[in-house]
Amino acid sequence: MATPEQMIAAVHAYIAAFDKGDPELAVEIFSSDAVVEDPVGTPPKRGHDAIREFYQMSMATGAKLVLDGPVRVAADHAAFAFHVPLHFEGQDMEIHVIDTFAFDADGKVREMRAFFGASNMIAAT
Amino acid sequence: MATPEQMIAAVHAYIAAFDKGDPELAVEIFSSDAVVEDPVGTPPKRGHDAIREFYQMSMATGAKLVLDGPVRVAADHAAFAFHVPLHFEGQDMEIHVIDTFAFDADGKVREMRAFFGASNMIAAT
Repeated sequence: MATPEQMIAAVHAYIAAFDKGDPELAVEIFSSDAVVEDPVGTPPKRGHDAIREFYQMSMATGAKLVLDGPVRVAADHAAFAFHVPLHFEGQDMEIHVIDTFAFDADGKVREMRAFFGASNMIAAT
Repeated sequence: MATPEQMIAAVHAYIAAFDKGDPELAVEIFSSDAVVEDPVGTPPKRGHDAIREFYQMSMATGAKLVLDGPVRVAADHAAFAFHVPLHFEGQDMEIHVIDTFAFDADGKVREMRAFFGASNMIAAT
């Protein structure tokens, strides 16, 4: 099973991929048959090609992830809260998100789910 | 489908149940066949009787939930980050947790999962 240290490192690698704007660094944390549901309720992206395309689009917006609080680790799962600062229609806004990662035995993310919706885009504080 | 307002209200009702120390107020947010996995990786509690027993034990510790950041809402899910202040071996500690709720069409929680582990019990800040 993935260790807590491996899982926390994967979360930080994911955030760093956005910081660097490098989709491939995000793809690397996922298993080859991983499923990304972002946000929850939308059609899942399956496998590296679909996941790469998704992060290419996400990172093209310049989005950066600001972690809020510690990464939670339970069994083979990690969960973390963060916000994405953005400038929208002349205003400083933030999208507040919670992601969950489920890991396989090799320490790769086999399932990612992102929880956020329209009500989570709010004026920056 | 449950509305965002219903889902956010359920999260606040859950937190209020702990504030009041009333397990029945927690049970009321769940559907009769709901599943509670708290923390993730432990055997799920199924149905109102098992869920009541679980919250009776949880609330007997005096645990209160302090919400950290906004409740995230995606489709028929809510996710929220919080911490539980506690006094442990003479020290002020906090357990940092992320919960996810999945709702049924009636606005009741059909699945609850709590993400936290040993690494999430830290000295109070």
